[in-house]
Amino acid sequence: MLGLMQNWPLTVDKILDHAKHWHGDREVVSRSVEGPIVRTTYAQIHERAKKLSNALRGLGVLPGDRVATLAWNTGRHVEAWYGIMGIGAVCHTLNPRLFADQLCYIINHAEDKIIFTDLTFVPVLAENRARMPTVEHIVVMTDRAGMKGVDLPGALCFEDLVERSSAECDWGGFDENTAAGLCYTSGTTGNPKGVLYSHRSNFLHTLVTLGADVMGLSARDTVLPVVPMFHANAWGLAFSCAAVGAKMVMPGQKLDGASVHELLETEGVTFSAAVPTVWQMLLAHLRETKGELSTLKRVVIGGSAVPEAIVRGFRDEYGVDVTHAWGMTETSPLGTQATPNAAIAAMSEEEQLRYKLKQGRPPLGVEMKLTDDQGARLPHDGTTFGKLKVKGPFVVGEYFKGEGGAILDPEGFFDTGDVSTIDDQGFMQITDRAKDVIKSGGEWISSIEIENIAVGHPKAALAAVIGAFHPKWDERPVLLVKLEHGVEAAKEDFLKFLEGKIAKWWMPDDVVFVDDIPLGATGKIDKKVIRERMKDYVLPTAKAKENA
Amino acid sequence: MLGLMQNWPLTVDKILDHAKHWHGDREVVSRSVEGPIVRTTYAQIHERAKKLSNALRGLGVLPGDRVATLAWNTGRHVEAWYGIMGIGAVCHTLNPRLFADQLCYIINHAEDKIIFTDLTFVPVLAENRARMPTVEHIVVMTDRAGMKGVDLPGALCFEDLVERSSAECDWGGFDENTAAGLCYTSGTTGNPKGVLYSHRSNFLHTLVTLGADVMGLSARDTVLPVVPMFHANAWGLAFSCAAVGAKMVMPGQKLDGASVHELLETEGVTFSAAVPTVWQMLLAHLRETKGELSTLKRVVIGGSAVPEAIVRGFRDEYGVDVTHAWGMTETSPLGTQATPNAAIAAMSEEEQLRYKLKQGRPPLGVEMKLTDDQGARLPHDGTTFGKLKVKGPFVVGEYFKGEGGAILDPEGFFDTGDVSTIDDQGFMQITDRAKDVIKSGGEWISSIEIENIAVGHPKAALAAVIGAFHPKWDERPVLLVKLEHGVEAAKEDFLKFLEGKIAKWWMPDDVVFVDDIPLGATGKIDKKVIRERMKDYVLPTAKAKENA
Repeated sequence: MLGLMQNWPLTVDKILDHAKHWHGDREVVSRSVEGPIVRTTYAQIHERAKKLSNALRGLGVLPGDRVATLAWNTGRHVEAWYGIMGIGAVCHTLNPRLFADQLCYIINHAEDKIIFTDLTFVPVLAENRARMPTVEHIVVMTDRAGMKGVDLPGALCFEDLVERSSAECDWGGFDENTAAGLCYTSGTTGNPKGVLYSHRSNFLHTLVTLGADVMGLSARDTVLPVVPMFHANAWGLAFSCAAVGAKMVMPGQKLDGASVHELLETEGVTFSAAVPTVWQMLLAHLRETKGELSTLKRVVIGGSAVPEAIVRGFRDEYGVDVTHAWGMTETSPLGTQATPNAAIAAMSEEEQLRYKLKQGRPPLGVEMKLTDDQGARLPHDGTTFGKLKVKGPFVVGEYFKGEGGAILDPEGFFDTGDVSTIDDQGFMQITDRAKDVIKSGGEWISSIEIENIAVGHPKAALAAVIGAFHPKWDERPVLLVKLEHGVEAAKEDFLKFLEGKIAKWWMPDDVVFVDDIPLGATGKIDKKVIRERMKDYVLPTAKAKENA
Repeated sequence: MLGLMQNWPLTVDKILDHAKHWHGDREVVSRSVEGPIVRTTYAQIHERAKKLSNALRGLGVLPGDRVATLAWNTGRHVEAWYGIMGIGAVCHTLNPRLFADQLCYIINHAEDKIIFTDLTFVPVLAENRARMPTVEHIVVMTDRAGMKGVDLPGALCFEDLVERSSAECDWGGFDENTAAGLCYTSGTTGNPKGVLYSHRSNFLHTLVTLGADVMGLSARDTVLPVVPMFHANAWGLAFSCAAVGAKMVMPGQKLDGASVHELLETEGVTFSAAVPTVWQMLLAHLRETKGELSTLKRVVIGGSAVPEAIVRGFRDEYGVDVTHAWGMTETSPLGTQATPNAAIAAMSEEEQLRYKLKQGRPPLGVEMKLTDDQGARLPHDGTTFGKLKVKGPFVVGEYFKGEGGAILDPEGFFDTGDVSTIDDQGFMQITDRAKDVIKSGGEWISSIEIENIAVGHPKAALAAVIGAFHPKWDERPVLLVKLEHGVEAAKEDFLKFLEGKIAKWWMPDDVVFVDDIPLGATGKIDKKVIRERMKDYVLPTAKAKENA
C-alpha cells in the first residue's frame, strides 16, 4: 500500500524558488573578478538565472547536456548553476587548478557543450580551444566592458545573454533522479572520474547539512564559502544558503588572509567553510595585523586533517568554534562532522579537543562501516582500523560513463579509499589512505601516524613512511626523512624519538635520509612518486633474512 | 539523463537504525502508565522493535495492514511504531480523546487488524469490542503483572510478545512511497478523514524539522514531547529525536503542570513541544510553587494560537525561548515556524514579539500561497487575507479511501481551511477559519479578530462573532457576548469598545447577549452549534432594509 501524500519531486530549482519567495531581499555579495564588490539578492539571482536558462535553450542546450563552469565563487556563478540545472542540463564544475591536459581530458570526457568562464581563465581556454571539439560556445562571465580585453574568437558575453533573454521560464518538472551536476575527482591514480549528482542527491544533501548538528545554518547567518563551488558544490553551501535564506558572501578569486578578513568584517560574516591552509593564512594575517573577528562564530574545516593549533587559535584568541568535517566528491561531499554529542559536550574543553580533531560522526543519511580486506565488519573501539566504506542517497553509485566499473560492495557500500578508526562515541578518524597503509604480517600499520610523530623531531623538515617488501612480513615500514637545512642526524636519533610513541611492531625497519620529499598539487606527500623512487630499495632486515 | 548516485529509499526504519548505530546508549526515559519511571536506550528500543516486528508477522500482519495504537507517549509506543512501520505495515495512531462512536468509526474505516493499547484504554475497548469486526487482536502494552487486572478476553501481553520473539528481522527494502502511518483529522464537519503518511513523507518531514531554523534538535538535546504521538507523530519528534540521538523523555499520561515540571527538572530537559494549555498549566504551577526551569532552553508551541502572556512569561521569568509553530495532520504536521529571520532578529525584543505571535514562515519543503475565492494569488502585505494553501512532499495528496474526493487545486495546493495574512517578512498569521470568515460585500472580515478584542472588555466572559444574512452585503458580523456572572451591559458598551480598534466596516451590525457560548472538545468556540442556534436570527439592519 502506498501513502497518499503529494508527489513533489526533490529538484534543486525549488531551493532557489524558496529563497526568492521567502528571502527575496536577502543579499548575495560578491568580490567580483573585475574587482569591485557587487551586491545582489536572491530575488534578482532567481530572475537572472531564469533569463540564463532561456539563453541556454537559445544556444541549443537540451536536458542532459553538460554545461561547464570554470569559475570562482561569485553571484554570477550561482546564477549559472541554477540556470543550467533548472532546465535539466548538467552543471559540470571544472577545477581551474588542474593542468591544461587534465582540463582538456575532463572537458572531452564530459562532452561539455558550453563553458562558462571567468576572465581569469580565458587565456587557458584560448590556448587549448582547438582541443575541445564538443564545446560549441564559451561564455565569459563579465559585461561588455569586461569583454574588451577578451582574446577568444566567438566568445559570448554573460551579461549580454542575460539582458536579451526573457525571465519567463519553467524550471523542474522532471524526475528527481535527473542528473544535476558533474564533478571529477582529482584521482591520484588513473584518469579523473566523474561523479554525476542528481537533483535528489543534492536536495537531500542540502536538507541533511542544514541539521543543527551539521552545518546548522539559519536565516540569520551570513555565510562566506571560501571552499570553491568546483569542490563538490562548495560543500553544498550554494544550495544550503539559499535553502534557509542566509546571506552569502562570495570571495571571488582573492582567498588570501587579508582579503578574506576584510570580507568577514565588512559583511558581518557569522559562518565560513574552507580547507586548513586558508585558515592558517587568516590566523597568520590576524596575528600580524592584530585584527579582530567581531562577527564570526563558526568555522567548518575539511579537505584535510585540521591541525590542533588552528582549533586552539580560533577558540582561544578569537572565540570562534571550529568544527572538523570529512567528505569527498563521491559523498556530495558531507560524510561526517565532529559535532559533540551529549557525552562529549560534558567533558572538559581539553578532552573535547581530542574528539574535535577527529573527522567526526555521520548524520542520518550516511551509513558507515569499517571492514578488513575481506569485507568483514570491524569493531568501533577507537583503535582497530579498517577500510572506511559509506552508503547513502548522496553517495556515488557508479562513475560517469561507468569508469572504474562496479564500485559498490555486496552490501551497497562505496569504499572511500581511506583507512580509519571509529571510537565508542561514533567518532571516525582517518588514519591513512588504503594504498599507503603498511600490511605487516596480516596487521595494518598507519604510515601517517608514524610520519606525524617523526616530523615532530626538531631536526626533521619533512618525513614520509612507506612499506617496503619483506620476505616474512610482506611489508615493513621505512621512514624517509628530509632534514632541516644544514643539520645532521643518525638513524638512531629518529628510532629513539619514536620509541614509546608507537607500538613496538610499528617501529620502522630502516630510516633513509633524502634530499627531497615530493609533494603533490594539493600539498600532500606524493607517495606514488616516493614508491617509484624507492623501487630498487631493499630493506636491511630483508637482506639479513636473505643472507641467513 | 539520470544521476548516478546510490539508490537509498527513504524509509523510517533507517532512522532507528541510525540511532542504534551512532547513539545506541542514548536514553529514552518514560513515565510508564503503570507508574514508575522506566529507562531504556535506542539500542534496546531497536532490538525490542525488531522482536515486535516478528511477533506481528506471527500474528499474520502483512505489508499494508493497519495496526493501530491507542496509547500515551512512552518508550513502548515508540517500539510499537517502528516495529509496525519496519515491516511495511501501517501504524494507525488513534486519539483516545475521541468519543467511543468516533473511535469505532475510525477503527472500522481503517480496517485495523490489531490494536496496541495502554492499560488506560482497555475499558473503552472492552466495552466496544463487538463493534470492531476487523480487529483480530488487542495487545495491551504492559507486562504479565499488568495483565492481571485486564478484563478483555483474548487480549495479548506486549512484554510476552517481545520476550518470545527473535530480534532477527529485516526491515525496509520496499518503495519509499509505501504507507507508514495513518492519522485521522478531527474533522469539524463530516466524518473524520484519514491522512496516509508514507515513509518518504515522514523521512523528509524529519530532515526538514531538524533544520536549525525549525526544531533544530541536536544530539546534546533532551526532548520532552508533551504533544502526543497520536497528534501527527508528536510533531515528528518520535522520528527526529532518534534521527539526531537526542535523549527522549516520554511523559506517559500525566500532563499536568507538576508532573511535567518534575520530568523537566529531573531529566534535564532542554527542549519541549506542546499545545498552549499545557504551558499555561506549567506556568501556573511554577508561579504557585516558585519552581525553576534550570535546563529548559526552547519550547515550541502549536495546535492553537499562542497567548502573548505565555511567551512573555517564559522569556522574562524563566529565560526560555518560545517559538510558535503551525501545522495540521494534513501537513505531517509542520507548516510554518516563527523563527526570526535576520531582519526580525535585528529588531527590539518588543518588536520581535509581534512576529513571534504570528504562525511564522515555511521551511524549504513547504510551498504556501494566499488566494481569493477564485484561486487568484493575493499579496503578502500583512493585511490582505485569503485562503491559506500549501504544497509539498509531506502535505496530503488525497484522503484515505478517497474520502472528500479531489482535494488539490489546479496548481496542486491543498486548501488548509484557514484564512490568513502573510507579511513582508514572510510571516503567516491565521486570521480565521475559512468557514467562519464573514463575507461582506465581497470583502472578508475576520470573526476571530473581533472576538479577540471584544473578549478583552472587562464585562465579557466569552465572545463570539458570526456572519448573519444581509440582503445587500450578503453577510454582516454579529457579536455574541456571554457576560461575566452577575454583570449587566448595553450593546453600546461593546460597540464603543470596538471603535477605533477595528475598521469601521468591520463593526458588528448587532450585539446579542447570550447565557452560553458553546465550546468544542478542544476548547475552541463551536461556531457550528452557534450558527445552528442562531438560524432564525434576523439582523436589525436587514429588517430595516426589508421594511424600507
